[in-house]
Amino acid sequence: MLVDPLLPVGLATPATLVFADRLEHNLASMAAFADATGVALRPHAKTHKCLEIARRQMLLGARGLSVATVGEAEILTSDRSAPSGSEVDDVFVAYPLWPADDLIARLLRLTERVRVTVGADSSEAVERLAPLAGRVRIMVEVDCGLGRSGVTPAEAAPVARAGERIGLEVSGVFTFPGQSYGPGAPARAAAEESAALAEAAAFLTSAGFESVERSGGSSPSARLVQPGALTELRPGVYVFNDAQQVELGVVPMEDVALMVAATVVSRPVPGRIVLDAGSKVLGPDRPPWASGYGRLAEWPDARIVGLWEHHAVVELEGPGPALGELVAVVPNHVCSAVNLVPELLVVDRGLVVERWKVDARAANR
Amino acid sequence: MLVDPLLPVGLATPATLVFADRLEHNLASMAAFADATGVALRPHAKTHKCLEIARRQMLLGARGLSVATVGEAEILTSDRSAPSGSEVDDVFVAYPLWPADDLIARLLRLTERVRVTVGADSSEAVERLAPLAGRVRIMVEVDCGLGRSGVTPAEAAPVARAGERIGLEVSGVFTFPGQSYGPGAPARAAAEESAALAEAAAFLTSAGFESVERSGGSSPSARLVQPGALTELRPGVYVFNDAQQVELGVVPMEDVALMVAATVVSRPVPGRIVLDAGSKVLGPDRPPWASGYGRLAEWPDARIVGLWEHHAVVELEGPGPALGELVAVVPNHVCSAVNLVPELLVVDRGLVVERWKVDARAANR
Repeated sequence: MLVDPLLPVGLATPATLVFADRLEHNLASMAAFADATGVALRPHAKTHKCLEIARRQMLLGARGLSVATVGEAEILTSDRSAPSGSEVDDVFVAYPLWPADDLIARLLRLTERVRVTVGADSSEAVERLAPLAGRVRIMVEVDCGLGRSGVTPAEAAPVARAGERIGLEVSGVFTFPGQSYGPGAPARAAAEESAALAEAAAFLTSAGFESVERSGGSSPSARLVQPGALTELRPGVYVFNDAQQVELGVVPMEDVALMVAATVVSRPVPGRIVLDAGSKVLGPDRPPWASGYGRLAEWPDARIVGLWEHHAVVELEGPGPALGELVAVVPNHVCSAVNLVPELLVVDRGLVVERWKVDARAANR
Repeated sequence: MLVDPLLPVGLATPATLVFADRLEHNLASMAAFADATGVALRPHAKTHKCLEIARRQMLLGARGLSVATVGEAEILTSDRSAPSGSEVDDVFVAYPLWPADDLIARLLRLTERVRVTVGADSSEAVERLAPLAGRVRIMVEVDCGLGRSGVTPAEAAPVARAGERIGLEVSGVFTFPGQSYGPGAPARAAAEESAALAEAAAFLTSAGFESVERSGGSSPSARLVQPGALTELRPGVYVFNDAQQVELGVVPMEDVALMVAATVVSRPVPGRIVLDAGSKVLGPDRPPWASGYGRLAEWPDARIVGLWEHHAVVELEGPGPALGELVAVVPNHVCSAVNLVPELLVVDRGLVVERWKVDARAANR
């Protein structure tokens, strides 16, 4: 049976693979960029959800991790066998958390072992955090143009003052420049991010807050951040990259560190093949500007034109891979793909050398 | 805190709920339709992946289950505590399986305890099934217009003969009329399905095959099948339904049996709210014809206009639900939503009465 040159032999497909050398390259490259720019790196762990990768990020100088949920924070700070220097001792729930009672209790327990910061975009949410005064810090979320959550820069000060009134330490302001996900959009998104954070920070400074953190960063815009514009960077996808990053021109295909090995199960008509990697392993994500539902690493002209739960329909020129042949598929959105599987197969020099559990899989609360 | 009238109090969100009465209604209604139409029902279990629901389908007269993978077949036939009459003793892997060696070994073991049928759309795949001659039956996949896998009706006979040559029993032909997923499309899809299966079956009959099964069915087209057109029906989504089925006009919102409870975490500007149910619990599916990324059951005018991993951005008129309020979200594609969570919370008369494990979650091989 023929095999894609990237793939180890003998794989049972679909299989979600991490290429160790590419992962190390991506981790080191972002850490070096943050160093050179003088910005603290706080990678978003929702992408990988793996203790193994969190350790590596900490060893490379990350200030701590960003997470989306309290559950991710709990799991990713519970690594009892982390070697010295790789422990995650600082987490930021970079989300406008609604602090229901159970979450307050869990955050309280979490503060017993690590430094905890929580996002907020309303005085109402901040006020519910009162039982955590002196225990957690807050960051006020600002919308820099995405139109998701977050207040306007001018509204950041009232939210921060609500925290101050009840004795919560206010660390600063944060934003997510998700409008970077579009062709030609990353540079403008980085500029909007810097401007909104600067404006919000100025409002906080005027209101008497000192040393205001300015935290931003999406993977497409992260490397476009100017020195001094941000104090903290929170990219997530950069550890693996994906077809979106490649099609946005953020990275070359050679920097994609996670792929799904798939088998050609059907060749119904010339120019079309069907793979056994569907939306339940790749994720169904497809932004309107993407060229398909993912890419084939070694077949640059191929496009996934249809995706069902267990079928990827690929159109390509020429004979293409044969029935039974294995190909490496690059998902559109790697955060979705990782969350769909219990473990990742780590490939080093053509061999599967380890299996990493997706520790915080489905930790949605 | 205000709560959606559908939702039990005290839920920690996001939570994936199954409404017991609606589930029973949907199961009984499709079983009654199959009875009345004289077609055997073989529900597709990829939607629910739950032993608890498989039992109910068998008790209601299902001939067996359809599955997408050998893994689903193994798990869903391994229910050692199934009450008499609810055991799954017959499975059809309704997929153009590429029979790699490990899958052949697993299928062989599976045939030791249940009746097994496997899909195929090439002579090459059929020939690899030789070690299973006398043990598994095959069904030849035909494309009725979807453009996914499957041969043309005329090509079904050569594939069937490849099976006959090596001693495999050929049960018949099957298709998936997935082109039913479009506004106004279900009726035409049902007609194309019947025509393609009839044509393929005629080719098999001419080639000497007897009692040729004609198996079809998608949830949008299932109830449009005419008596006598099919011998077997394989709908999956009907057990729960979802926003796609509602927006296609297949069922009313009252027949949606699975919803995700979510909390309003942000109200950044008038007319927009943000929920804590994102693509990691709803699934990122959004067909171009859908009105959004899902629906709010009790807020019919609301639309989910943006979806990120942990944010659903909802636009709606009027004041809308308050910060901290819970709402019930109907996913676009319930098969994606179920596969994202380890368990489903079963709601009966307003209370969570049971938790059902998603037994075959991520059983992608």
